[in-house]
Amino acid sequence: MGLNVYLSGEIHTDWREQIIDGAQGLDITFNSPVTDHDASDDCGVAILGEEPNKYWHDHKGAMVNAIRTRKGIADADVVVVRFGEKYKQWNAAFDAGYAAALGKSLIVLHGPDHQHALKEVDAAALAVAEHPSQVAEVLRYVLTGKLPG
Amino acid sequence: MGLNVYLSGEIHTDWREQIIDGAQGLDITFNSPVTDHDASDDCGVAILGEEPNKYWHDHKGAMVNAIRTRKGIADADVVVVRFGEKYKQWNAAFDAGYAAALGKSLIVLHGPDHQHALKEVDAAALAVAEHPSQVAEVLRYVLTGKLPG
Amino acid sequence: MGLNVYLSGEIHTDWREQIIDGAQGLDITFNSPVTDHDASDDCGVAILGEEPNKYWHDHKGAMVNAIRTRKGIADADVVVVRFGEKYKQWNAAFDAGYAAALGKSLIVLHGPDHQHALKEVDAAALAVAEHPSQVAEVLRYVLTGKLPG
Amino acid sequence: MGLNVYLSGEIHTDWREQIIDGAQGLDITFNSPVTDHDASDDCGVAILGEEPNKYWHDHKGAMVNAIRTRKGIADADVVVVRFGEKYKQWNAAFDAGYAAALGKSLIVLHGPDHQHALKEVDAAALAVAEHPSQVAEVLRYVLTGKLPG
Amino acid sequence: MGLNVYLSGEIHTDWREQIIDGAQGLDITFNSPVTDHDASDDCGVAILGEEPNKYWHDHKGAMVNAIRTRKGIADADVVVVRFGEKYKQWNAAFDAGYAAALGKSLIVLHGPDHQHALKEVDAAALAVAEHPSQVAEVLRYVLTGKLPG
Amino acid sequence: MGLNVYLSGEIHTDWREQIIDGAQGLDITFNSPVTDHDASDDCGVAILGEEPNKYWHDHKGAMVNAIRTRKGIADADVVVVRFGEKYKQWNAAFDAGYAAALGKSLIVLHGPDHQHALKEVDAAALAVAEHPSQVAEVLRYVLTGKLPG
Amino acid sequence: MGLNVYLSGEIHTDWREQIIDGAQGLDITFNSPVTDHDASDDCGVAILGEEPNKYWHDHKGAMVNAIRTRKGIADADVVVVRFGEKYKQWNAAFDAGYAAALGKSLIVLHGPDHQHALKEVDAAALAVAEHPSQVAEVLRYVLTGKLPG
Amino acid sequence: MGLNVYLSGEIHTDWREQIIDGAQGLDITFNSPVTDHDASDDCGVAILGEEPNKYWHDHKGAMVNAIRTRKGIADADVVVVRFGEKYKQWNAAFDAGYAAALGKSLIVLHGPDHQHALKEVDAAALAVAEHPSQVAEVLRYVLTGKLPG
Repeated sequence: MGLNVYLSGEIHTDWREQIIDGAQGLDITFNSPVTDHDASDDCGVAILGEEPNKYWHDHKGAMVNAIRTRKGIADADVVVVRFGEKYKQWNAAFDAGYAAALGKSLIVLHGPDHQHALKEVDAAALAVAEHPSQVAEVLRYVLTGKLPG
Repeated sequence: MGLNVYLSGEIHTDWREQIIDGAQGLDITFNSPVTDHDASDDCGVAILGEEPNKYWHDHKGAMVNAIRTRKGIADADVVVVRFGEKYKQWNAAFDAGYAAALGKSLIVLHGPDHQHALKEVDAAALAVAEHPSQVAEVLRYVLTGKLPG
Repeated sequence: MGLNVYLSGEIHTDWREQIIDGAQGLDITFNSPVTDHDASDDCGVAILGEEPNKYWHDHKGAMVNAIRTRKGIADADVVVVRFGEKYKQWNAAFDAGYAAALGKSLIVLHGPDHQHALKEVDAAALAVAEHPSQVAEVLRYVLTGKLPG
Repeated sequence: MGLNVYLSGEIHTDWREQIIDGAQGLDITFNSPVTDHDASDDCGVAILGEEPNKYWHDHKGAMVNAIRTRKGIADADVVVVRFGEKYKQWNAAFDAGYAAALGKSLIVLHGPDHQHALKEVDAAALAVAEHPSQVAEVLRYVLTGKLPG
Repeated sequence: MGLNVYLSGEIHTDWREQIIDGAQGLDITFNSPVTDHDASDDCGVAILGEEPNKYWHDHKGAMVNAIRTRKGIADADVVVVRFGEKYKQWNAAFDAGYAAALGKSLIVLHGPDHQHALKEVDAAALAVAEHPSQVAEVLRYVLTGKLPG
Repeated sequence: MGLNVYLSGEIHTDWREQIIDGAQGLDITFNSPVTDHDASDDCGVAILGEEPNKYWHDHKGAMVNAIRTRKGIADADVVVVRFGEKYKQWNAAFDAGYAAALGKSLIVLHGPDHQHALKEVDAAALAVAEHPSQVAEVLRYVLTGKLPG
Repeated sequence: MGLNVYLSGEIHTDWREQIIDGAQGLDITFNSPVTDHDASDDCGVAILGEEPNKYWHDHKGAMVNAIRTRKGIADADVVVVRFGEKYKQWNAAFDAGYAAALGKSLIVLHGPDHQHALKEVDAAALAVAEHPSQVAEVLRYVLTGKLPG
Repeated sequence: MGLNVYLSGEIHTDWREQIIDGAQGLDITFNSPVTDHDASDDCGVAILGEEPNKYWHDHKGAMVNAIRTRKGIADADVVVVRFGEKYKQWNAAFDAGYAAALGKSLIVLHGPDHQHALKEVDAAALAVAEHPSQVAEVLRYVLTGKLPG
């Protein structure tokens, strides 16, 4: 058994690298959104033409990014969604809902401060973790049956 | 043609009533989550037994509320998701993603301040409105072909 | 047995009325897009705000109209698509493809001049007719087993 | 992440080759319909037997071509539909509708003259481009996060 | 609980009437194909235009009949397929396969002589009966829990 | 909002009546399997013919009962599965798995002794109750937002 | 583009070998049912235990064969169904209906004598051929765009 | 043709090894749940944090195990479910129902004592075996057409 894992959400810390490092040696294909913040914001107008209106500037970019996001989630067995300390992160919650509706196994990763605000998202998850290392350990257990320590 | 419309999101203002009032005379069935904040938070433990741990207290309630939310979205032709001025509102974004994945027609309702933060959610929508009256006008046009004014 | 029939395509002649008249007495619910050409073109900006750029003007309207079109096709047992003598009518062909992918029973209505250009669309249909009266007769036969004459 | 891309529509210019050239080095599998116009028109009767009636001649061919088209779209992550300057091109719009109903990521490619006539098709797309090079750049960004220039 | 039951197959005996009579008083909606043999054979050409070639004559009729058959099976909870003593009855077996693939509850009705030849069809069924009265008794039991006698 | 609720599982106590009584006044349609134990065991052979082999006797009955069970679960928004104190009750767990795979909202009802043995079933549920009155209270809250007491 | 092709139906002539030979050099995976008539009839009892009753003997075998048939059809892009000159061949028609309901591209292969009796099956097909060589030519054209001769 | 087979159920005997041994040389990928009983019980709390309440201890583990189970069943062509002599084994029956609802080919493996209690589970199966060697023989026949002996 191998797994395809999509890593959605916060892009300002190295949580993706921590999970990928922690999962070394496992048969896992990881995918994620474009994590270059500027490229992600500007991809629509940079390729398809300028928009003077900021709303359509954002819209064009969000649509292009959706090609990658939809593919990433559609192919995934497991979707990990990380909520960081800052920002609204509505796209992370959107991805979690999208993944849940498709029946993907959902793992949510966030600090204890967000427990109440994320209770509906956590309720759709099969695992709720605080640290990236826990996500790696879950993936290791799922594939090998081995527990840490 | 009639419509089933689910009204998801912010529960602290009367936007649902404004839409329902504005849509009077149309063949629309409206559904929404439980909007009594205390009941919504406590329903799990009030019915199924106390939990000393706040996480499981929240979890039990979120699971019970999910029975209603899933039914409401599954039955809907149109899902309207309102983002208010305050709070994280991750459950609203989660519902939007859930609805999008099921192919529901999505209408997003929010003020101009949230445009950038909601760009991925807006990109999944067929209409983005600032005022509840616009949502009612969209529904009226969809069912009757009549424009306002 | 009753039928839900969606009438897609050309909006400049009275073919819809001819089918509905010809199907009198049958248990059929007919739906169609908004056939008021100006309202259909302007619905997006009239409700959701002006757009100086014609592309986004059109886009907003097309998105709002899609709420009705998707609902109409999703509910339909039979989708009738009419191609008239003039215009590109790509939305008609788009609806035909959309309906075919959902497994709807497709009836295509067009004059003999368009046979070659519409061969891929016709190939997805269960009936290809030249006159609206034939569509009504097909619907009558399907529901009652009675042939004309 | 790799992509399967189906290139539908106009067959009289080299837009397919331009996209494939522009996408060199990317993990993409491209598919397209048979672009030999005569073979495409005659395949049905050439293999399955002559038809004196032109309608059935066309029909037999369209059905055989549908085996390839359906497979190509069903396998695709992204469907690119090109509308050229000439002809009705209803099969292109049909493919776009078919792909949209299956939830495929749709990219539409056409000149500015067709904007109004294609507004319903564009409204179903995640990207609308004027030049094949833009499609290649979208695909490159989706797979690598790199913007042109 | 009510049931929608589609009665497919042999059209030369009164087995449909026997089942409907035997199921009197139950909350069942019965549907069936057009059982007027001549109308069923000629419906295509009678409405959509003559065909000199017998194959296309048959084809046009089969396509029009498919509108009714697909609707009848799609709406059904239970599909009953009757194989008579005579004829090839491939359309009956086709309907059985179609219904099985859609997950419909299948009841097959045939005499003991056909047991071996129908073993693959029977293997997809939840009940195999020899007499129409048994089908009515199955439906009565399913809806009321009452056994005969 | 109304609900369709299927009551699966144990047939030796009056838990179904308790739920239905507790849910009086709510817009709920309740369905359940045939709860007459003898009829349920013998329905296959009583209608479709005797079987000397007990395995096929059981098999014929289980197949006929599946017509009702599948319809009941397919139509349900909520599936309640009750595990009593005695017997293997594998059909109850089978129904729970079947309902879970279809995305139905699952409520499991059992005493505290079975917690460990039912942990996989409970993990697929949105509510786990010990008393039928709790199930009624969940249903009342879901439909009205009112909590008990 | 490669194809997965399932070859269903008649097992007494070498039509499968003719198609496979004719398709040499193409990227096609062919599958078919077990064509050893005796093994196919007896597989159930030979492995799972004798049945004195011929009906259950046949039933056990048909169920085991269904594991292969379902897999073969589920994996297929194209399902070819051959009707020979003799026997009832209801399993062939059943497979055709099963494949059609799953949206598989269907090719039907039969002699001219069966045209009228197979009109409903042919009406669900994208190609109807008389000779195995024609099926191979269709597959070659679909994959390469090359016509025979 | 190759097969993906998921081996669900009893974990106290070597039935999985017997099947895998018996299927040597066949193109089969086998998957199964974690069969280390202690790891399976404790995986949730060992990775995601201790729970003083045994119910939540079990719950956390069952959720993590569900990631593997769902993947295993979703990928499978054939699901084999083994019921041993002891324990409630409700998770085995749950998996059988889950697999049946997804349309997987189900093989049930149990001793004769459980025939009556498992009649609903057996009724959803394509093969019911008493010995692991029979399951291997079924798989060998399905892939090669060869019968034992």
